[in-house]
Amino acid sequence: MKKIINDPTTVVDEMLQGLTFIHSDVLRRAEGFDVIMRRAEKQGHVGIISGGGSGHEPAHAGFVGEGMLSGAVCGAVFTSPTPDQILEAIRQADEGAGVFMVIKNYSGDIMNFEMAQELAESEDIRVASVVVDDDIAVEDSLYTQGRRGVAGTIFVHKILGDAARRGCTLEEIKALADDIVPRIHTIGLALSGATVPEAGKPGFVLDEDEIEFGIGIHGEPGYKRDAMAPSKTFAQELFGKLYESFDWDTNKKVALLVNGMGATPLMEQYIFAHDVEELLAEKGIEVAFKKLGNYMTSIDMAGLSLTLMQVTDNDVKALNAPVNTPAW
Amino acid sequence: MKKIINDPTTVVDEMLQGLTFIHSDVLRRAEGFDVIMRRAEKQGHVGIISGGGSGHEPAHAGFVGEGMLSGAVCGAVFTSPTPDQILEAIRQADEGAGVFMVIKNYSGDIMNFEMAQELAESEDIRVASVVVDDDIAVEDSLYTQGRRGVAGTIFVHKILGDAARRGCTLEEIKALADDIVPRIHTIGLALSGATVPEAGKPGFVLDEDEIEFGIGIHGEPGYKRDAMAPSKTFAQELFGKLYESFDWDTNKKVALLVNGMGATPLMEQYIFAHDVEELLAEKGIEVAFKKLGNYMTSIDMAGLSLTLMQVTDNDVKALNAPVNTPAW
Repeated sequence: MKKIINDPTTVVDEMLQGLTFIHSDVLRRAEGFDVIMRRAEKQGHVGIISGGGSGHEPAHAGFVGEGMLSGAVCGAVFTSPTPDQILEAIRQADEGAGVFMVIKNYSGDIMNFEMAQELAESEDIRVASVVVDDDIAVEDSLYTQGRRGVAGTIFVHKILGDAARRGCTLEEIKALADDIVPRIHTIGLALSGATVPEAGKPGFVLDEDEIEFGIGIHGEPGYKRDAMAPSKTFAQELFGKLYESFDWDTNKKVALLVNGMGATPLMEQYIFAHDVEELLAEKGIEVAFKKLGNYMTSIDMAGLSLTLMQVTDNDVKALNAPVNTPAW
Repeated sequence: MKKIINDPTTVVDEMLQGLTFIHSDVLRRAEGFDVIMRRAEKQGHVGIISGGGSGHEPAHAGFVGEGMLSGAVCGAVFTSPTPDQILEAIRQADEGAGVFMVIKNYSGDIMNFEMAQELAESEDIRVASVVVDDDIAVEDSLYTQGRRGVAGTIFVHKILGDAARRGCTLEEIKALADDIVPRIHTIGLALSGATVPEAGKPGFVLDEDEIEFGIGIHGEPGYKRDAMAPSKTFAQELFGKLYESFDWDTNKKVALLVNGMGATPLMEQYIFAHDVEELLAEKGIEVAFKKLGNYMTSIDMAGLSLTLMQVTDNDVKALNAPVNTPAW
């Protein structure tokens, strides 16, 4: 394992120290916790928090800041954060109007976020949540019942963060979350596996001429191993699956996210995006919002994911609203 | 070679198509050229252009936009752009007040940018330039006389872009460039070599327990191969060299850039940044501006570079001024 680290057992703590050093104008660490909060002044709005295992940087701490998340809970690498950590994020995010939790669909995350919710409610903090399950690749997986939550989660952060800033109530944010999550679909592929520092070797290994479609962001298996192929072939496969997963009669307007898994250069992501652009045009789909880069990574995995969200004009407005975060 | 591409000979063209698709609100391509221009309305300001070989994404096209570059010329991978391409960028960047070129110190770049300058001047466009040579690792290199131009170049883009927006003249921008460039120093290290698509294999290979200090962004050799070590050791080596390269009696205030080379996860960059933070504190150096991420990459190289710039209050103001670019 070749990594710029000091000790595999302290990577999260040291990373958070570096994060709060670099982004000290926007972020602060909740003392004694692996919780990153924004510095922006409290305004009586609903707090929005998210989190999960570390190793997906910039998710989620990079999306903390004005107009997006109030805080992020950073678990051990690929490991759900514990309820006490989540509870602290809820406490610190509460501005008197309650706290909304964006949870990716992993059994450990759901269990621990729900436990934290109960603890917070016993302290008279109102809490609501949504479970994001945008990954259409497989049903049920290593750590998941149903579909996994992956890169599309950042659209949820952005749209709900905007709603909170506009002063929406906890009930309104819950309704908005339930409305948008089913309209966000993602699917990915890997060229290589990710190496968790404490494991010291890749979670899975692919041959030099082999890729895997539909992998998760923790090395969960996908739906098909296949031969290495041109970008256009990958675009057809991933876009094809996404296309089938939507009802296009009602809405042909989308937001698009091409997400790098960590080790994939922007050059490759842009080439892939161009191939997707052509497929979208062929189907007459309007792209109302676009984003590309490393947003929800899997440590040093090579690969990418494609997210489409069927959007309303209000969604587009929320996605375009200015924010002050390190990574959006 | 495992890359998400279609054809090694068309990567730049396809990448630029993807780039202008994703960032169509900010960027446009000069028709028939590998030149990316900003869409912002012309305001009679000095145009600022840069460029060089591709493979360093987001540099330089990702820094095109209001408040930063007017345009970027995108050569073949790791290959200087040709004079006709640069000339087109100069023509399109000219708003009547002349055009300033930010050139990284590579012999091919200097030759071709200077040739383009002569051609532009024969069309009555005023042109001036600066050569950035921030890499303190080695004197003279594969493609360079003197020191190479690397990640610190983006500080030059940012500060000059701000000056142009403030309405500075070509002469004022030239004076500012000559003032800031000597105050920007960078040094890097590699854990792995980069693979140019047309070459199909890495430019150099390092053993599993081997790294190289002082590498360039095109796989140019550094000053020392050494054993793999903890992040703290890397920080001591790189910071140590940078520290020695400045006169600290006059100014102990710096801007800092931790730059990922393409395949290095943010987790590792933040851990390294934390180690650098401690070394800066030990020396009583004030960090007035901080940035971290993949800004000047070497395709899929694993590694990073550290840039320090001795800054004035005006530099910090310029670095913090808002911009509308894909990547700053």
